[in-house]
Amino acid sequence: MRADDPFLDRYAHGTRAMTASEIRALFAVAARPEIVSLAGGMPYTAGLPFDVIGDVVEEVLGKEGAAALQYGGGQGDARLREVMVELMRREGIHASAADVVVTVGSQQALDLLARMFCDPGDVIVAEGPSYVGALSAFSQYQVEVRHVRLDDDGLDPDELEAELGRLAREGRRVKFLYTIPNFHNPAGVTLSQERRDRVVDIARRHDLLVLEDNPYGLLGFESNPPDALRAKEADNVVYLGTISKIFGPGLRIGWALAPPAIRERLVLVKEAADLSQSNFNQAVAYRYFAGYPWQETLKELRDVYRERRDAMLETLTEHFPPESGVSWTHPSGGFYVWVKLPDRLDAKAMLAKAISARVAYVPGGSFFADDQGGSNLRLSYCFPPPERIREGVRRLAGVVTEELELLRAIGGLPTPDERADGGPPPAWGATQ
Amino acid sequence: MRADDPFLDRYAHGTRAMTASEIRALFAVAARPEIVSLAGGMPYTAGLPFDVIGDVVEEVLGKEGAAALQYGGGQGDARLREVMVELMRREGIHASAADVVVTVGSQQALDLLARMFCDPGDVIVAEGPSYVGALSAFSQYQVEVRHVRLDDDGLDPDELEAELGRLAREGRRVKFLYTIPNFHNPAGVTLSQERRDRVVDIARRHDLLVLEDNPYGLLGFESNPPDALRAKEADNVVYLGTISKIFGPGLRIGWALAPPAIRERLVLVKEAADLSQSNFNQAVAYRYFAGYPWQETLKELRDVYRERRDAMLETLTEHFPPESGVSWTHPSGGFYVWVKLPDRLDAKAMLAKAISARVAYVPGGSFFADDQGGSNLRLSYCFPPPERIREGVRRLAGVVTEELELLRAIGGLPTPDERADGGPPPAWGATQ
Repeated sequence: MRADDPFLDRYAHGTRAMTASEIRALFAVAARPEIVSLAGGMPYTAGLPFDVIGDVVEEVLGKEGAAALQYGGGQGDARLREVMVELMRREGIHASAADVVVTVGSQQALDLLARMFCDPGDVIVAEGPSYVGALSAFSQYQVEVRHVRLDDDGLDPDELEAELGRLAREGRRVKFLYTIPNFHNPAGVTLSQERRDRVVDIARRHDLLVLEDNPYGLLGFESNPPDALRAKEADNVVYLGTISKIFGPGLRIGWALAPPAIRERLVLVKEAADLSQSNFNQAVAYRYFAGYPWQETLKELRDVYRERRDAMLETLTEHFPPESGVSWTHPSGGFYVWVKLPDRLDAKAMLAKAISARVAYVPGGSFFADDQGGSNLRLSYCFPPPERIREGVRRLAGVVTEELELLRAIGGLPTPDERADGGPPPAWGATQ
Repeated sequence: MRADDPFLDRYAHGTRAMTASEIRALFAVAARPEIVSLAGGMPYTAGLPFDVIGDVVEEVLGKEGAAALQYGGGQGDARLREVMVELMRREGIHASAADVVVTVGSQQALDLLARMFCDPGDVIVAEGPSYVGALSAFSQYQVEVRHVRLDDDGLDPDELEAELGRLAREGRRVKFLYTIPNFHNPAGVTLSQERRDRVVDIARRHDLLVLEDNPYGLLGFESNPPDALRAKEADNVVYLGTISKIFGPGLRIGWALAPPAIRERLVLVKEAADLSQSNFNQAVAYRYFAGYPWQETLKELRDVYRERRDAMLETLTEHFPPESGVSWTHPSGGFYVWVKLPDRLDAKAMLAKAISARVAYVPGGSFFADDQGGSNLRLSYCFPPPERIREGVRRLAGVVTEELELLRAIGGLPTPDERADGGPPPAWGATQ
């Protein structure tokens, strides 16, 4: 961070290497209104029913004000945990509220579970690419993340099994598989039913704990995704949920559903981390989901996101013809499109130019713990309105086209005519 | 935790040893209404102005609803950080909001700072007794806590310096001093002005980072405590504040004021831990402190706590005459009285009997990382009304008297006539 940090030699090993990325500085710039940000994963909270929320808060203050402003228990509000059980039922999960722990979004659950399980040198297996927040939580515990390839059907089980075999031969300790089966962040893909069965089977055979992170499962545009992994396997799966994408992240409420032994310990670690969840926010969330037609709001949000997804995919198709060598995923839910540029393009180096052209994205390298993803980028369609998304993709296309022309001029890229296969590689072919 | 935990050999070293204490089970029982709990440190939230809070929330939803329900920045709401700077000014601190990081109560700051600074085997120096939540946060990072004696004037600087000398000779790495200068939890004492000067001087000479935890500073009953340590020394002090005791812990809002290098890194660790603080709660807290007469409410709360403190001290004096061998501290603010029983009494063993007699407290051993405090206990006067406090202390006196009689009967305790000094030892003479 600072070259002149007087405390530098006193930090713990796990956090000493943390640095504010250069990307962070660029994002500060990207917050300017003239820039179309396709970078952040902010849900469309302007679509929430503030009048209803006002009624809910009035109810909370009138009926349980003193308790709502008080400390809570480490496991979280029992009524809210029942709501969470109901939400999970939609994904085929039959669980008890006694096995749910409320957390500060899924992010806290990721942090606490990594703390609970990981010593320096342990291995976590995750999709490549994977959620950047998970990677930064894990990195504090000096864990090595091994990535497993994704494709249109999600995590590749053959690759998973091969990686587990390699790790076993290396004598490495795998603490868990971290996976986002639905509308993956950043890849936008969903694990197929057939692969879910295989992943569960592999987890059983390898005695592998699975962290199933599912923030977007209720945000399917065309249909619901297949049942959760946890629906099939209770003993070796910790399921993470959140209300951030179906209500608001401003309440900071998520949860973990875990086997009893893990759940008990997780409560202790949660208490050591922050004593308890906000009772006030838990009461608001409980009453919102238990007493108001939240499913109507969810349906409206889904419609908003579907329209934005369509705007993004249409404009990508329009501006990146096959001969551009640019490809991307086609999410059927969630927030993200994963884009593959021609190998020679460096999405991180290109970001400054993109911001000059008033469009922002997240370079693909952020989603890998190793050096993959250099020619990938993540586009989010969740926050800007459709016309801004179209404008943003247009601006991005201008930047990419210019970069490609430059590369061709200096002989760094085959011309479209020279391409052997005539089409772009798949979007997740990150570094191959 | 569970003998049959199938994951037991997979937990990280730092959390493997965590166990739910037996005390925890007793507290579950202690929540029954017939039991007077002098155990918990719950503020009197029933005294908060719910109509005002309702207005504040209406304002938040009307003026900034979409932002309040959205993700926030890792450092926290800039407006709220200005409020925090104003609050700290009351304790002689002149600081910039740019150096403040909003956290989930002070507890999260303790957890994150321990994570930032501590490798296994490092040492943290803290008062003995010390805050139980700090001890459990620190223990996750496999730190050794070395205790320094307290007395009526707070932390003993001579003992601090001696301990630092011992640690230097042992070649141990001291990462910081953790101290609660005002209305200490659990000891109830306040660091004198003269000792504050000495502690700051020692910190400078030993290049010792100080974590100054100040949840109760604005809760002085007779007068304000001396200026904060941070008022005198900015380079080597991280100051922790919270609104839990002057507003409500249900919002889970605290803060750290830190030297710039530490503050920058703390923001990164905070983001890895939970992405961001609740924007909703931050907006509520900001508007409450910036736009409403919170000082009137604080004054009312102080009056409530003063009356309860008086009820507790009066009833203790009434029921524990000098010849009982029981002594206690006389807090001039905050929530707690620290009680010393005769050495041969075991406060932890006695708790089950106390709960049978329908009164609960926290055994003193909980406030030490080593085996001190066995004959101490902490009484809280913050939550029950005065008549319940009196009843609780009466019940406790009954239990202690019975224990003492039992011990005398079996010859384990000198009779009052046999006591050499004729009076009880000071309350903080924990194990001497």
